[in-house]
Parts: sequence; structure tokens; C-alpha cells
Amino acid sequence: MSSVVKGLEGVVVADTALSEVDGENGRLVYVGYDIADLANHATFEEVVFLLFHGHLPNRRELSEHSASLASHRTLDPVVIDTIRALPVTSEPMDVLRTAASALGAASHFTGPASIDHATTLIAGFPTMVAAYDRIRRGLEPIEPREDLSHAGNYLYLLSGEEPSEQRTKALDTYLILTADHGLNASTFAARVIASTLSDMDSAIVGAIGALKGPLHGGAPALVLDMLKEIGTPENAEAWLTNALDHGVRLMGFGHRVYKTEDPRAKVLRALAERTSEIGFFKLATRVEDLALQMLHARKPQNRLYTNVEFYSAAVMHGVNLPDDLFTPTFAISRVSGWTAHVLEQLKDNRLIRPASHYTGPWDLKALPLDQRQ
Amino acid sequence: MSSVVKGLEGVVVADTALSEVDGENGRLVYVGYDIADLANHATFEEVVFLLFHGHLPNRRELSEHSASLASHRTLDPVVIDTIRALPVTSEPMDVLRTAASALGAASHFTGPASIDHATTLIAGFPTMVAAYDRIRRGLEPIEPREDLSHAGNYLYLLSGEEPSEQRTKALDTYLILTADHGLNASTFAARVIASTLSDMDSAIVGAIGALKGPLHGGAPALVLDMLKEIGTPENAEAWLTNALDHGVRLMGFGHRVYKTEDPRAKVLRALAERTSEIGFFKLATRVEDLALQMLHARKPQNRLYTNVEFYSAAVMHGVNLPDDLFTPTFAISRVSGWTAHVLEQLKDNRLIRPASHYTGPWDLKALPLDQRQ
Repeated sequence: MSSVVKGLEGVVVADTALSEVDGENGRLVYVGYDIADLANHATFEEVVFLLFHGHLPNRRELSEHSASLASHRTLDPVVIDTIRALPVTSEPMDVLRTAASALGAASHFTGPASIDHATTLIAGFPTMVAAYDRIRRGLEPIEPREDLSHAGNYLYLLSGEEPSEQRTKALDTYLILTADHGLNASTFAARVIASTLSDMDSAIVGAIGALKGPLHGGAPALVLDMLKEIGTPENAEAWLTNALDHGVRLMGFGHRVYKTEDPRAKVLRALAERTSEIGFFKLATRVEDLALQMLHARKPQNRLYTNVEFYSAAVMHGVNLPDDLFTPTFAISRVSGWTAHVLEQLKDNRLIRPASHYTGPWDLKALPLDQRQ
Repeated sequence: MSSVVKGLEGVVVADTALSEVDGENGRLVYVGYDIADLANHATFEEVVFLLFHGHLPNRRELSEHSASLASHRTLDPVVIDTIRALPVTSEPMDVLRTAASALGAASHFTGPASIDHATTLIAGFPTMVAAYDRIRRGLEPIEPREDLSHAGNYLYLLSGEEPSEQRTKALDTYLILTADHGLNASTFAARVIASTLSDMDSAIVGAIGALKGPLHGGAPALVLDMLKEIGTPENAEAWLTNALDHGVRLMGFGHRVYKTEDPRAKVLRALAERTSEIGFFKLATRVEDLALQMLHARKPQNRLYTNVEFYSAAVMHGVNLPDDLFTPTFAISRVSGWTAHVLEQLKDNRLIRPASHYTGPWDLKALPLDQRQ
């Protein structure tokens, strides 16, 4: 009998040319490029192009690609009507999942997937998230602007004001860093769904649902909750000691794959230093230092490092995103990786259908109801 | 380097006490009971209870469980509003996916999952599918009836007329036969999503998207298309010969796991004989016989058998379901298995996060845009 590989840890289920998570050395590469290098020399639009086409765009390619993304920002009215049908108390991730599903229902695309279809989804996500955020605040959604960048337009759609270059750049860098990450659970869910030759919207809707989970993309807001509760650097030691004594899982530390510092955390820390208020950044670094020391002292054999969520929270807080839009903003980035993985899956598809080990009873005899006890 | 196991064929990723697909011997077992035995001695409601509780209900348990299912048939108005927001040309599976997502957005359930939460989803699916079918026909949705069975109420919601016992029983048997099937792609997608500790609605919404694919649940309507195109038993040989000569994949034959006849096909064939018009059943059996002969003659080494979809199509056609509700009706059944698997996954959860093999380039240097060619 085959043994059960719960969690599929270390089981290689696909070839991918999109990204490589080098957990031993703390490196993350998209199509050959180190993400720190991309964060310095590229924009989110260029990274999307890279994931779709396998090389960074030249000026003409980038111009066409950016124009295509910008032109799909305005959504089919069906999607906004769907968002309006939902309660204003809904979790934003539930709304994004429903809105993306409605986009699929109204879609004119046929067949499993295409770059055009992917572009519609990537372009539409910021509009969906911002429309709901405004509707729940009693405001009307704003018309997207084609002259702003992907990050800039998203911030504009939320506030109605053109964002500063610094805020736009900070969000753009966050989007670059979280665009893809191998076969994380949401990307894998998207590939499983796509492998049935269902449509791209179905795959992306499934991925949104997976990203929502606190073991995946649902954690950044919990980091912020923790930092707010701690409140001041002076309070950190007592708070963390108490939490660890009571077996509370600290948010923002540890990762399935990285055995050293998450390379995204490094870039995000530097970004948080430039983006956050000084007091908040001091609090975050103090909590990080202490938490790492204390986790190491308590479990020296099981070394934990700061993960992407810890400083994601600081950066998203720094650009004034509401806490419950942290995970939807993660989705705004990751949908680029999801769609690229769906396209890759379909190039050489095989239905993903694993086996299970049956542990239930055998050979019971079904009696009609009136003979049962 | 580990080798890539595309499709995860034969890789055991979970223990399950819910169902066992014995592909070698052509048996399908739910919690110890052979499905043919359940089809004879149980109802869909009893099978749902079996999947949730691990034993068939006694009279009192069944009465409480059926009352709970029946009481959740009327949906939160948000769900009907969402369905009304979608175009009446939408594919019913897209509408079901969006409606289930809206149910999640409006849900009062907190935490990853519970039997109550599962009950709401199972009870709500027929209401969603029938409401959309009526809305697209320009009719008003009908109030569910608590005094009818799950199958009977679904047929009633579609037509507004109380269905005959024979039609109700035929649909009930179909629902029993397709309630669960090991780690099929949609069930696996649900478990991947649930493994992030996301909510049950997210897992089910992802599963709907996977079931839609033609390599999974999207095929029964294609079987009917084929039978309609063939038209008469006399035309079958010429049509099939021509199709196979042109490399057309025949719908309703072959399965990843079964190496002999699909045990569900056997029960469904007998059911189709009782449910279909005589002419239609003769056509179906003639096409089946010829197709199996011809497939065997052309590829003797690669033996194919009739799968669940072939006679599912005949049975669903026999109970007067529109073609494009075949797959949503499959979902109405399978949501019982999906929710049971989510509950099982969460009892002993581990994040499902496989590895990939990177085949892209390495160590490229990202140049700023103005230095790129």
C-alpha cells in the first residue's frame, strides 16, 4: 500500500517556468529574475508581461500590454450589480470571489483560457475591490483611469484622489513581490480546477477562496491586529511572553518552504521603513526582533523566520489600505501568477486526480429504513 | 531530483472513510455500503446522513435530518438578487458558482466548517439552480416545499408541478449514485481550498468550478448531443465510424480509475430503461454496444468501458431536465460529498502545498526599461 503524503509536502506535481522558490537559500525567482532585482528595475505591469511571455517587455511591448490592461479596468455592469446585491457587511474576499464569478458568468470568452481572458481578470480585480469598498462606505464607485499605473489606479479608485508617487511605488513593489510563488495552495487549486478543462474564471474563483484562508493569504490583517494590540515597543516583551506562554501562534513567522529569511520580507522591511510612520516601523522591528529571539529560545531545533506577511501588513498599512483589504490586495497581485499558471497548465494538461486511502468499514449491508435500529 | 507526477495519478494524498473507488473490481463503496445496495434501500437524504455521521440513520435521526435539510431550502434573498443580476444567457454552472459564492458572502457562519453549514449548502443548491432556470424562462422562482423529498422538491421547483413518484425515484437514485467518488478533481479542489482554513463556501465554490470542466462533470450534456446527432439506431454505425476515423473523442466512455465497467453505469442503465422513452433507450444501448466494439477493435490494448456519464445523460433526459442542467444536477448531488470531504479534511488538517520543478532560466539581470531592446 502506498503511504499517504498529506499536504503533498515535497511532492513535485508540475514543471513550471514561472517561478522558483529556493527555500534553502532564501531566493525567489520569476522567469530567471531575482525578485529583489525586479523590485528595483521593473513595474508590476512588466512583471505580468514577464509571466505571460517569458521575457521582460521592451518599450513597445510594454506600451501595448499596459494599454490592454488599462482598457479592461471598466467592468461589465453585471459585476457592479452583483456587488450591489451583496450585504455591505460582507467580507471583501467573499465579495471579490462573487464578483469574479459574476465576471465569468457574463464573459464572452469561450474555451479554457487565453492571455486576453487573463488580462480582463487582472485588470478587473482592483475595480471590484474598490467598488465594494466605496459601496459599503455609502459612496459611488469611481470610473477607472487609463492614464494611471495598475497600482496608482487602484489607490485612486479607493480614495478618489490621485495618489502620491511614493505610495504608488510602495504598492507597486508589494504587487511585484507577491505576484507568484510556485505551487502555493491557491495557485495549486487554480491548476487543479483548470486541469478539468473548465474555464479560467472558475480556476481564479477557486484560487480566491483558497487565498482567503489564514494558513495562506488571510494572515496579514492578523499581523496588524497583533501589532495594534501590542501598541508600543515597550509593551512587546510582556505581550509576546504572555502569548507564547499561552500557546498563541504568532502571526508573520515561519513558512512551509523557506528555511531562512523570506526574500520578500527583506525587500518589504526596507519598503516599510520608507512608507510607515516612524513609530509604527519601530514597533514592527522591535516585535520582529523579540519574536525571533523568543521563538528561537523556546524551540532551537525548529528555526522560524519572518515571512512575507509580517512586513506586507506594515507596507499595506503604510499606504493607508483598510485592514480587511490586505488579503484582497494580495489577490490583486497574485491573480497574475494564477492566470499564468492556468495558461501553463493547459499547454500540456493532464487531469489532476489523486488517489486516497480508504479507512472506512467494508461490506455493510444496507437495510431498508423500517428494519434499522 | 524528484520526478514530476503530473495528474497525481496513484499518489495517495489523504485518508478517507467516506468512499472507496475500487477500480480493478468495478465497485464503489460509501462508508462500507455498496452503492447498488444504497440505490435499492436508501434515499439521497439517508446517504447524506451516512456521509456526515458514518452510519445510516434510524427513523428518528432521518426525520430530524430531513427536516433540517428541508428547512434550509428557502434562500437568503441576497442569493436570488445575485442570480437576477446575472445575464439570462449565463451558463447555469456559472450561475450556481456565483450564487453559492453569494450565499457565502451573506452567511452568518463563522469558522471553517460545520454540518449545519454543509446542510445549508446542500439544501440551497436545488433552489439556486431552479430559480435561475425559471428566471431565464421569464418565470418567477417558486417557494420550496418542505413536504417533498430533496429530489421531488427540485423537480417541483423547476416545473411548478408535483413530480410523479417514478420521476422522483429516478432522480433520487441518480443523486445517490453520484454523491461521492473518492478524490475526484472537484473534491480534491475543495480539500485543497479547505486546507488553508478558508471557509466551506469557498471550498464548495471552487469545486463547482472544477466540476464544470468537460474532463470531469461537464460531459453528460455532450453525450446527449452525440445521441441526438446520431438520431436513430440505424445511423449509429456510420456516425461512430466517421467520428472515430476523424479522431473524435466519444463521450461517455473511459475513466481514470475504473479498469472494468463503472458500477454506477450498470445501475443507471437499468434506471434509464425504466425512465426513458423506448426509442431513446434503444438508441442509447445500440450506440453503447457499437462504440465499445469499435473502440476495442481499434485499440485492443487500451480497453474502455461505459462510464457514469453515458447513462446519466439518458436518466436526466428521461426525467425531463434541460441539457444544460445536467452538470448543475450533478453538483446538487456531489455537494454532499464535497462538504463531507471538507469536514473530514479539517478533522486532521495539513495545508496542501505541493512542490514544482523549475524549468525556466536562471540568473538573468533585470535591466531598466530604457536599456532593454
